[in-house]
Amino acid sequence: MNISLEHKRHTLAHLLAAAVVEQYPHAKLTLGPAIDTGFYYDVDFSAGDTPGEEDLKGIQKSMKKLMNKWTEFTHEEVSVEQARQEFSGNQFKLELIEEIAAKGEVITLYTCGGFTDLCRGGHCENPKEEIASDAFKLDKIAGAYWRGDEKNPMLTRIYGLAFDTKDELAAYEKQLEEAKKRDHRKLGKELGLFSFSDLVGPGLPLWSPKGTILRQEVDAFVQQLRKEKGYQTVTIPHLAKKALYECSGHWQKYSEDLFKVRAKNDDESEEYVLKPMNCPHHTQIYDSEQRSYKELPIRYADTTMVYRAEQSGELSGLTRVLSITQDDAHVFCRESQLRTEIESIWDIVDTFYSAFGFTLKVRLSFHDPADVEKYLGEASIWNETEGLMETIAKDRQVDYFIGIGEASFYAPKIDFMAQDSIGRTHQVATIQLDRLLPERFDLSCINEQGEKERVVMIHAAIAGSLERFIAVLIEHTGGNFPFRFAPVQIAIIPVAEVHNAYASAIYEQLSKAGFRAEIDISNESMGKKIRAAKKGRLPYFIVVGDTDIETHSVTLESRDTGESKSLSIEALLAKLTLENT
Amino acid sequence: MNISLEHKRHTLAHLLAAAVVEQYPHAKLTLGPAIDTGFYYDVDFSAGDTPGEEDLKGIQKSMKKLMNKWTEFTHEEVSVEQARQEFSGNQFKLELIEEIAAKGEVITLYTCGGFTDLCRGGHCENPKEEIASDAFKLDKIAGAYWRGDEKNPMLTRIYGLAFDTKDELAAYEKQLEEAKKRDHRKLGKELGLFSFSDLVGPGLPLWSPKGTILRQEVDAFVQQLRKEKGYQTVTIPHLAKKALYECSGHWQKYSEDLFKVRAKNDDESEEYVLKPMNCPHHTQIYDSEQRSYKELPIRYADTTMVYRAEQSGELSGLTRVLSITQDDAHVFCRESQLRTEIESIWDIVDTFYSAFGFTLKVRLSFHDPADVEKYLGEASIWNETEGLMETIAKDRQVDYFIGIGEASFYAPKIDFMAQDSIGRTHQVATIQLDRLLPERFDLSCINEQGEKERVVMIHAAIAGSLERFIAVLIEHTGGNFPFRFAPVQIAIIPVAEVHNAYASAIYEQLSKAGFRAEIDISNESMGKKIRAAKKGRLPYFIVVGDTDIETHSVTLESRDTGESKSLSIEALLAKLTLENT
Repeated sequence: MNISLEHKRHTLAHLLAAAVVEQYPHAKLTLGPAIDTGFYYDVDFSAGDTPGEEDLKGIQKSMKKLMNKWTEFTHEEVSVEQARQEFSGNQFKLELIEEIAAKGEVITLYTCGGFTDLCRGGHCENPKEEIASDAFKLDKIAGAYWRGDEKNPMLTRIYGLAFDTKDELAAYEKQLEEAKKRDHRKLGKELGLFSFSDLVGPGLPLWSPKGTILRQEVDAFVQQLRKEKGYQTVTIPHLAKKALYECSGHWQKYSEDLFKVRAKNDDESEEYVLKPMNCPHHTQIYDSEQRSYKELPIRYADTTMVYRAEQSGELSGLTRVLSITQDDAHVFCRESQLRTEIESIWDIVDTFYSAFGFTLKVRLSFHDPADVEKYLGEASIWNETEGLMETIAKDRQVDYFIGIGEASFYAPKIDFMAQDSIGRTHQVATIQLDRLLPERFDLSCINEQGEKERVVMIHAAIAGSLERFIAVLIEHTGGNFPFRFAPVQIAIIPVAEVHNAYASAIYEQLSKAGFRAEIDISNESMGKKIRAAKKGRLPYFIVVGDTDIETHSVTLESRDTGESKSLSIEALLAKLTLENT
Repeated sequence: MNISLEHKRHTLAHLLAAAVVEQYPHAKLTLGPAIDTGFYYDVDFSAGDTPGEEDLKGIQKSMKKLMNKWTEFTHEEVSVEQARQEFSGNQFKLELIEEIAAKGEVITLYTCGGFTDLCRGGHCENPKEEIASDAFKLDKIAGAYWRGDEKNPMLTRIYGLAFDTKDELAAYEKQLEEAKKRDHRKLGKELGLFSFSDLVGPGLPLWSPKGTILRQEVDAFVQQLRKEKGYQTVTIPHLAKKALYECSGHWQKYSEDLFKVRAKNDDESEEYVLKPMNCPHHTQIYDSEQRSYKELPIRYADTTMVYRAEQSGELSGLTRVLSITQDDAHVFCRESQLRTEIESIWDIVDTFYSAFGFTLKVRLSFHDPADVEKYLGEASIWNETEGLMETIAKDRQVDYFIGIGEASFYAPKIDFMAQDSIGRTHQVATIQLDRLLPERFDLSCINEQGEKERVVMIHAAIAGSLERFIAVLIEHTGGNFPFRFAPVQIAIIPVAEVHNAYASAIYEQLSKAGFRAEIDISNESMGKKIRAAKKGRLPYFIVVGDTDIETHSVTLESRDTGESKSLSIEALLAKLTLENT
C-alpha cells in the first residue's frame, strides 16, 4: 500500500480508539496498527461492557462525528515518568512504555482532536481533509490475545476497512462477498471433493474420488508439460534418517517444524524425520551413480507429500495443512545450462497458469544484504545468482519486482503470484536456484577433462502445493472447472424412460472415448436432473428426447455459455476431444 | 513339508550335533530344529576352536560315517535333577531345562548311536535305513544370537540342506544358484532401477526414473483392471491421529510396530501415527456422507505407502522395507453383494498374475478356533465368512488349501501364492473379508426401508506390496520384463553416422506413438551398442543400415526369441501397439 493510504489507515485506528473511549470509558487501549485492507485496534473491555458487532454502526457514527474536529496532529516527546503517568492504570500501555524505555528509544505521544495516544507517528497531516468519510467502515469484531500469545489476556479486536475512495471500498467489499460465496471449504463440500475427519485430524484432508480426479488431472497437466521438456519421474520414501537433514541443513534451521518419527520409544539412535522437502532425497538418487557431463541436465520430477508441523489452531481448509502434496522437481545441471533450464521452467509456468486463466506477477525473491547471517553461502554467489535471474526476467520482458529478504535460506527464488478472477493474488509456483545443496551433498559430474565438476540445482514446483492450488482454483473458478479438469465432464439426461437406451448408448460411447460421463436414469423429474447437473458445475449436459433419436444427434448445453445446440455424435466427440487437450 | 521329511531333518540336526561334539569336544550344544529346506544347529564354540565353512565337508563326512550306527532312537523321561546332571556345564541346555520344569512339562532325552540330546521327539525310526546319505548336505555357517536376542551370546549356526532324494537336493541347489544369479538386489543395481543411501537409511529404497516407470506400469495395469470393475481412486494423507487407530484396534494390537510421529517433543496430546494400513482412512471417506444402498458397492482404490517399524537388521533389498507401497483397495457393500465383489477381485488377480506368467496357488487363511482370544469378533461371524470363501473357491474349481491360524486378527483372507519361473512360491495378493471394522467405525447405508444397515468391507491388494512384487518380478523374469512393463522398450542403433537421420526419424515416430525408445548415436562400435541393449534386457532393438533405408523398413531383433526380422514401420508400430496392451 502507498504511504499516504497507510497514514490514513493508521489515523483511522487512532480515531477508532477515540470513539471507543468516548462510549466505553472503562476500555483500556492496547495496540492499533494499519493493515492490508484497513486497520484494527485491540481493546481490553474487561472492566465493563464489551461492544458486539451490532454496536459497530454506533462507533462508526461517532468516528465520523469526531473527525470533523480532527484537523491537525501534534506530538511531544515525553519522559518515561510522564508516559507512565499518562497511561497509569493501563498495564498494556505501561508494558509498551517499559519496552521502549529499555531499548533507550524516545517516547512520543500523538494528539489529534483532543485524543492522545502512545505512538511512533505516521499519520495524515489533516485527517478531516484527507480521509473520505465514505471510504472507511467498521467491519467486524474478533478475539485476539494480547501480543498473540495464548497465555495472555484475550482482548477485543475491532476491524475496519479503509481505502482512498468510496468506490475502492465498495470494490473490496464486493470481492469479499464474492470470495465468501466461492469459499473453497464450502464449495469443496458442496461438490464432494474432500472432507475432514476428527479421527484422522485437522489439516489432513481426505480426497473423494471426484477430488482425486481433479488432483490427478491438474498433476497430469504439469507432468505432460514437463515430459516435453525432458523431465523424468522418480519415487522416494516419505521418511529418512535425521542424518539426511543434518547434511542438508534443514535439521539445524527448522527442526522445530519437522515431524520426528520413532518406532520404539526408547530407541534414540533410530530417529527418522517425515520429509519436509524432497530435495535431499533427490540428491541421493542423483548421487547413486557417478554422472558424466553427457547425462546432464538430469531432471527429476515427483508429485509427493511433504510434512510441516503447524499448530492445530493454524490449520484451515486446504490452505494450511499438515501434509502438503508438492508437484516438485529438481534439475541437476552445469553452470552453462542454468539459463536454458530456468527459461524452460518459466515456459511451463506460463503455459500452466494461462490454461486456467490466471494472470501472473513475478517476484524476484532475493536475500537481504543487511541480514546476511540468515543465509547459507557466500555473498558473491548470491549476487551472481540473483543477477542471472534478473537478466532472464528482463529478457523475457515480464513485469517483475524484487522482494528483498524473500529468498529461502539456501537460495534466491523466482516467485510467481497468480491473480484470480476476483482480483486477489496468490503466491503459486517457484523457481529456486541452488548452489548450496550441491556443496553440502558433494554433487558433481565428470567433465570433458575427466575432472569432477560441481553441479548446480534448480528447485521448481509448478502448481506448488496441490492442496493450496486446488483451493485457489476452486475460488478462482467458483467450482466451474475447465472441461479437462472437471471431475464429471458431462451428464446425459433422458427425457423419459423410452429414451434410456439411446442415452445409454451415448454414455457408452463417451466413456469409451475416455470422457468422464454420467447418466441419470433416476425417477426424478427432468427439471430436477438438470438442476443437479448445474449444481454439480458440470461443463456440459445432454438432454435426450425424441428428436435426438430421430436425427441421430444430441442436444448439448454448455455451462459456460448457457447455449444449447444440436450436433451429431461424431461432432460431439470431436468437439470434446479438442477441449480435453 | 510332510511329517516324514520333517522327522528326517530333525534327525539330521541330532546327527550334526553328534558329529560336532566328536570333532569339537569343547562345543556346547544349544538348539537344533528342522527348517523349510533342511535343518540347523546353534553351537557355542567359545571355549575353543570354531569351525569355518572350509570345515563343513569334514563334519559332513563324520555325519555319514556316524549314520551307519544310527539304527534306532530310544528315549527316557528324566527328573529335573537328572537332566541338570546330564547337561551340567552347558548353561544353554540348563536354561531350557529350567523352563520346561517351570511349565511342569515332562523332560525327555533322546538317544541314537550313543548320542543323547534334550528333545521333545519327532525323529526317524531307523535313520540309517530312512535317510538317503546323498540327499543331505551341510550348506553354510552363520552367526546367531542365543534365542535371537542381541543381548545374548553369539552362537555359530551350521545349516544343512536335506530332502527325500538326491534329485530333490540337486533341484533345490540349482534353484538356489539360479536365484543367486537373479537376485533382485544385484539385478536392480545392474538395471539401474533403485538404490539405497546411507543418509536416507536402510529399508528406504530410492527409485530411479527407470524403476519408477516399472512401478508405474505395474500399477497402471492394476488400475486398468480395477477401473473396468468400477473402482474409483481416492487420496489420503500418510498420517493420522492416534485416535484413528484406537478406534480401528490397530493401536492396541500393534502399537510396537507403528511409527509414532511428533512435532513438538513436549506435546503428548498431539500424537500422530504414520499409517500402517489404509483401511481406517478409507472408512472415513466412506463415512464423510450418509450413504444410500443405491450407491453401493463403493470401491476405493489407492496406491500409497504404509509404514511398519522393522528392526534395521531385518531390512533387506526390496523384500523387507520400512515404507511399503500398497496397491490397496476397499469395497464397502451389502451382505448380498459380497460374493460378486469377491469374484470380481479374484478375476482381477487371475488376469494380473497370468499376464506375468505366474501360476497361482490359493490359501484360504482361516482363524484358529483353538486360539479364539487372538481374534476380534464372534465365532459365528468368522464361521459364516469362512464358509462363503470356501464356497466361492469350490465353485471356481481352483486348487486351494486351508491355512488354519493364518487369518489376520480382524478377518479371514484369501491369500494367493505365485509360483515363479524357478519354482519358488511367493505370497502375493490377498482378499480379506471384514465385518469388524464396519462395526468399530459404525459404517452403514440407508436401505430400502429407510433404516440404517451395517455394511461389509473387503480389503483387496492385487500386486500387494509393490516393492515386494517388483523384487519377485525381477527374479521371476531375470530382468527380462514383458514389453509393456520394460522401462526402456526398444533401442535404435544406427550402423554408421550416415544412418543417424533415418534412425532419428524412427525414434521420433516410436516416441510419438508413446513407446519408450532410446537411440544410441554414441561413437561406440555397433557390437558394443548391441551388447549394451542386451545387457539392459531391452525387449527389442533395431539396427539401422543401408538396406533399411532403401526399403523404408526396419530390422527388429527380439530379446525373447533372439530372431531378427525386417518389417515396415507401419507393421512395427502395429506389432508394438498390440504388445503394449
